[in-house]
Amino acid sequence: MTHVLVIGAAGMIGRKLVDQMVSDGRVGGKEISRMTLADVVEPTAPAGVAMPVSCVAADLATPGVADDLVAHHPGVIFHLAAIVSGEAEANFEKGYRINMQGTLSLLEAVRHANYCPRIVYASSIAVFGAPFPNAIPDDFHQTPLTSYGTQKAIGELLVADYSRKGLIDGIGVRLPTIVVRPGKPNKAASGFFSGIIREPLNGVEAVLPVSTDVMHWMASPRAAVGFLTHAAGVDGEAVGPRRNMTMPGLAVTVAQEIETLTKVGGLECAKLIRHEPDDTIMRIVAGWPRAFDTARALKLGFVADENFEAIVRNYIADEGIAL
Amino acid sequence: MTHVLVIGAAGMIGRKLVDQMVSDGRVGGKEISRMTLADVVEPTAPAGVAMPVSCVAADLATPGVADDLVAHHPGVIFHLAAIVSGEAEANFEKGYRINMQGTLSLLEAVRHANYCPRIVYASSIAVFGAPFPNAIPDDFHQTPLTSYGTQKAIGELLVADYSRKGLIDGIGVRLPTIVVRPGKPNKAASGFFSGIIREPLNGVEAVLPVSTDVMHWMASPRAAVGFLTHAAGVDGEAVGPRRNMTMPGLAVTVAQEIETLTKVGGLECAKLIRHEPDDTIMRIVAGWPRAFDTARALKLGFVADENFEAIVRNYIADEGIAL
Repeated sequence: MTHVLVIGAAGMIGRKLVDQMVSDGRVGGKEISRMTLADVVEPTAPAGVAMPVSCVAADLATPGVADDLVAHHPGVIFHLAAIVSGEAEANFEKGYRINMQGTLSLLEAVRHANYCPRIVYASSIAVFGAPFPNAIPDDFHQTPLTSYGTQKAIGELLVADYSRKGLIDGIGVRLPTIVVRPGKPNKAASGFFSGIIREPLNGVEAVLPVSTDVMHWMASPRAAVGFLTHAAGVDGEAVGPRRNMTMPGLAVTVAQEIETLTKVGGLECAKLIRHEPDDTIMRIVAGWPRAFDTARALKLGFVADENFEAIVRNYIADEGIAL
Repeated sequence: MTHVLVIGAAGMIGRKLVDQMVSDGRVGGKEISRMTLADVVEPTAPAGVAMPVSCVAADLATPGVADDLVAHHPGVIFHLAAIVSGEAEANFEKGYRINMQGTLSLLEAVRHANYCPRIVYASSIAVFGAPFPNAIPDDFHQTPLTSYGTQKAIGELLVADYSRKGLIDGIGVRLPTIVVRPGKPNKAASGFFSGIIREPLNGVEAVLPVSTDVMHWMASPRAAVGFLTHAAGVDGEAVGPRRNMTMPGLAVTVAQEIETLTKVGGLECAKLIRHEPDDTIMRIVAGWPRAFDTARALKLGFVADENFEAIVRNYIADEGIAL
């Protein structure tokens, strides 16, 4: 029996993770006795849950907050809380406060609580910065080109060192770009990877700001939830001291996305994509990873999406899209 | 004309760096107008200096201290202050306070002072952790196996991000193990690399705790000072966003060390090395880097020692050893 704490539970991945755990009743090989869901805005408890669920509005970087969250010694902690790349770049102090000091506060709270939970840390492929080899190997250096990537890389180093010292039992999973993100379009430079699938499937025009040969590393929300739940149970001995790793995704080109959309949604659907090149976005995207060799994660049992068509069909199924 | 601040000026490398700058009267292509020397214990001003030198006892991690140090906008800052590997491992909180928060305090002080000095950050090959390829390339990942290495790697990430944002103009130099360290033997696990040269040359017995085929990455104090002064003037544009790099050293085996000692000091001198295997030290050393490919640093003009014999002869010359 284990008490699960999810920090960042109100976000898209957080909500899907909680739903999955409610559905499974267990995580990391253990039955879930209770859940605590925390976020800067109070998360909504999932409907029809048998187990006790506490929902807390909590800013991890505020002194004392992390201590309160771990006071009852949750055995599994998912740390998904972060401000996103664009905001961390625009607001330097806020990014460091939430993404770096927030993570440090959590680790320090656990150290002072004097117990050793499994902490699953959501990191990002933003810890890498161009130039890249064609497929980025597991031993490629971390030279982020954003403050967000820097803060995530610092979190990784802390997770590894606190784990090495036996103060926590951490696993850092570097998530690929999540496609198809449900919901409204957002201002993220990566938004179009989801938008060119999501908008047309909902009968709305989508703008493609880059050329169709752009390739990127993607995973579905389902796969992301799978990475996190698998990380909750993966054997720390087998992982060893290198506690952070890139998750297996799919290297997908925009052309492949459009081809799949045409196959699944029809030609009229694909025609809703309007190509409108944007130099700024093209330049940003040129600095992003295209593909990885994730041998370590695969060996440890992390599972990628089957193919891009499965990503699209799962989006349709999960979000109840009527074609 | 530039004002130079050296933080960690009382250490072995700090003192030699200051002596070199006093002798040159300039650094990074600029004449030195004044120097501020800071350390946890007040540094001694070098003798017979024409330029104004201020000596300050300062703990970088204490709030306000870093702000005072940069109040007069030193144009070049050498940040050498750190507690060493063994102490950072034994005292977790102190290590993070001095090595991580201290570095962050300096960067934040400069950000708030609203100017953009060249900061030369002394990092370490301890940012790497085994297993390694035979020669570690410039793009090898940072997976430190000590808290010291973790703290140095975090400092590197901060130096790169603050530089990218134009808040500082930083260069991180990963120093090899310094051989021959002058002075008394210390308790560092790496101490024997220097000890087996230094003690015999001073007529004293030295203990060798590992086998003679152990290889390690070394640089002399002279080379280390050269790395730091070169970093003060290296073109930031040429360096690009990857602001941290491994310095060119020599991959030297213990057998080569002994051979050189025999050549320079004679057979009787080399006989003062007593082989006394120590399992603990052997295990620690097995996790250390043996050799690097430092193409980037070489291209940027950083210069390694000529060979190990030059290292020994320079030690003899610099420390006034009578053979």
